[in-house]
Amino acid sequence: MRTVASGLLVALAWCVPVPARAQGPGAAGPIADRYRTAADRLIDAALADSTAYQRLGYLVDRFGSRPSGSEALERAIDWVLGTMRADGLAQVRGERVMVPHWVRGAESAELIKPRPLALHLLGLGGSIGTPARGITAPVLVVESFDELTRRAAEAKGKIVLFDVPLAADRPAFEAYDQAVQYRVNGAIAGARVGARAILIRSVASASIQSPHTGIMRYDSTVARIPAAALSVEDAALLHRMQQRGEPVVVWLTMGARSLADAPSRNVVAELPGAERPDEVVVLGGHIDSWDVGQGAVDDGGGAVAAWEAVRLMQRLGLRPRRTVRVVLWTSEETGARGGTAYRDQHQAELGRHVLGIESRPSGERSPAYSNGWARPP
Amino acid sequence: MRTVASGLLVALAWCVPVPARAQGPGAAGPIADRYRTAADRLIDAALADSTAYQRLGYLVDRFGSRPSGSEALERAIDWVLGTMRADGLAQVRGERVMVPHWVRGAESAELIKPRPLALHLLGLGGSIGTPARGITAPVLVVESFDELTRRAAEAKGKIVLFDVPLAADRPAFEAYDQAVQYRVNGAIAGARVGARAILIRSVASASIQSPHTGIMRYDSTVARIPAAALSVEDAALLHRMQQRGEPVVVWLTMGARSLADAPSRNVVAELPGAERPDEVVVLGGHIDSWDVGQGAVDDGGGAVAAWEAVRLMQRLGLRPRRTVRVVLWTSEETGARGGTAYRDQHQAELGRHVLGIESRPSGERSPAYSNGWARPP
Repeated sequence: MRTVASGLLVALAWCVPVPARAQGPGAAGPIADRYRTAADRLIDAALADSTAYQRLGYLVDRFGSRPSGSEALERAIDWVLGTMRADGLAQVRGERVMVPHWVRGAESAELIKPRPLALHLLGLGGSIGTPARGITAPVLVVESFDELTRRAAEAKGKIVLFDVPLAADRPAFEAYDQAVQYRVNGAIAGARVGARAILIRSVASASIQSPHTGIMRYDSTVARIPAAALSVEDAALLHRMQQRGEPVVVWLTMGARSLADAPSRNVVAELPGAERPDEVVVLGGHIDSWDVGQGAVDDGGGAVAAWEAVRLMQRLGLRPRRTVRVVLWTSEETGARGGTAYRDQHQAELGRHVLGIESRPSGERSPAYSNGWARPP
Repeated sequence: MRTVASGLLVALAWCVPVPARAQGPGAAGPIADRYRTAADRLIDAALADSTAYQRLGYLVDRFGSRPSGSEALERAIDWVLGTMRADGLAQVRGERVMVPHWVRGAESAELIKPRPLALHLLGLGGSIGTPARGITAPVLVVESFDELTRRAAEAKGKIVLFDVPLAADRPAFEAYDQAVQYRVNGAIAGARVGARAILIRSVASASIQSPHTGIMRYDSTVARIPAAALSVEDAALLHRMQQRGEPVVVWLTMGARSLADAPSRNVVAELPGAERPDEVVVLGGHIDSWDVGQGAVDDGGGAVAAWEAVRLMQRLGLRPRRTVRVVLWTSEETGARGGTAYRDQHQAELGRHVLGIESRPSGERSPAYSNGWARPP
């Protein structure tokens, strides 16, 4: 588990007790030696031990996906809290947060013309549903917001498909940020030109007919219309059909709806600081996930890596100077509600937070910012 | 389309007219020059022309998957035949072949214990179905045929899951050949120990919950039991649950059945030889596919590449010495029935077949043999 090892090293640089005349962790001499000894002990313990892997396996296999508002998320949180207490961590608690409760419901997209075909659809998080009978409409495929603006007259009454691939010539997360604008803002742009629903090409570089979901948004100036992703393959298929001049008609059905906010919790546990216990290093990952998949990579692995770093320090008796606080954030996927709640609940001590560390899937960035309690650098 | 270019070059080496004192195509001198000139013209034409890509797109988008016995396959064949005639190829015809007609029907696998979860299932080609109410049984996960033999007493009455990953330390097609034994022979091995059904880990190196299918077989000495693939992820999940000592129970439902053989056709077209018209070079790919996906890679691309090579030779007036015959094989996936029928129908002229060339997805091998009309080298 490389993420555990790298998380440990970063945490260590900030946590291992050093005298007041402390030099930077890269400096030579007795202080660097002390870090090195502690680092070696932690790395050896992490590599000799499969606890993190076993716990991640249990978390995702037993509780499965952990969407905000779900019973599975709260049961997973109960299990983590109980296990953290058994680990001997201090101040183990769930800090209450009200979270969005969006449910997907049944959903499907059927190509009606030019030939019948079941498409691979995944509603975007937060989307409204369609009427029960669905929406059957011609599809207009566009490659950009600009093209939609130019073809606004054609879009009225249609389902607009944004077929925007990830740019192959840009770094992965830049390409993602660029394409994800269509997921986030596509429904607003579609509604402005009178579209009945929008579809996007799944924001993914590769796909085996597996669309990707994530948050989208509405604004108060235009109608809310349903929004969903098609697989990369299906978006390309509809685009080719349009390019050939074939009529493209899709029947879209989505049962998505937003229920009242539900109670959830940020999971918090601590290793008290030996010298400056009121100064806080936060180490975390998010415990919630989307409803598809198991949330193993995004972000079960990050959550367990943070937890494991602190568990190992505790087990090895490596007492930090400052308090190390593990926070497994809730509701990150649905608007960083856990992060926002933490900021609000800990307002009085935010000034004594000296560092925030989060493990995240590769390609994501600004993690502390995305959790709402700290600004980006 | 690299496959077109490479197919062209190989075909060219055998097809371009050379005098009786022909030297090998690698030799220097006027003959090599003549090949080179013709090769350059073909390559230039192929690279300047998107006909093959457009045709492949139309084939897979318009007709979709083309399983043996389906109307989609026969409609695709009709379209290819008509288009080959419009290309001006000679002797364009469909040669009748009776082919297996297996239909998947509805299928599902639900994890019942230790927690409810819809698994990702794909029945294996040729499998029988389950009773209408399905089969609900404990699962025994094994890693090899040997392990199943050792644990035969435990397997009786259960669903046996062969969780056999592709060997990471072997070349791709060797690893595939090794793992695919469980797909091909798993149902026989399972039936021998009294299993009620078998599942395999999808024979794939990577997966996004997308199981892979292919042929399987029964033998006459044991009962026929249903056989299906689980996604790589789901097979690993069930295995981890067993390793933790959790009870694993699955409810498997498969509506698969084999109907009476159906008529299909090998698609045949020719470019007549200028000097030895009764000697034949066969160039081909298979036109049928599995029922999932579009059959673009396996083997729409191979079929269109072979067709395109001959179309371009015809268009450029590159008249071969021998007759070049394009054959788009039917029913390759369901036992190479098209290949076998070709061998039987062309028995009298098999001795005058000087070369067979087939484009296939990377990683597959012995293509001529797999089509049944020629032996492996």
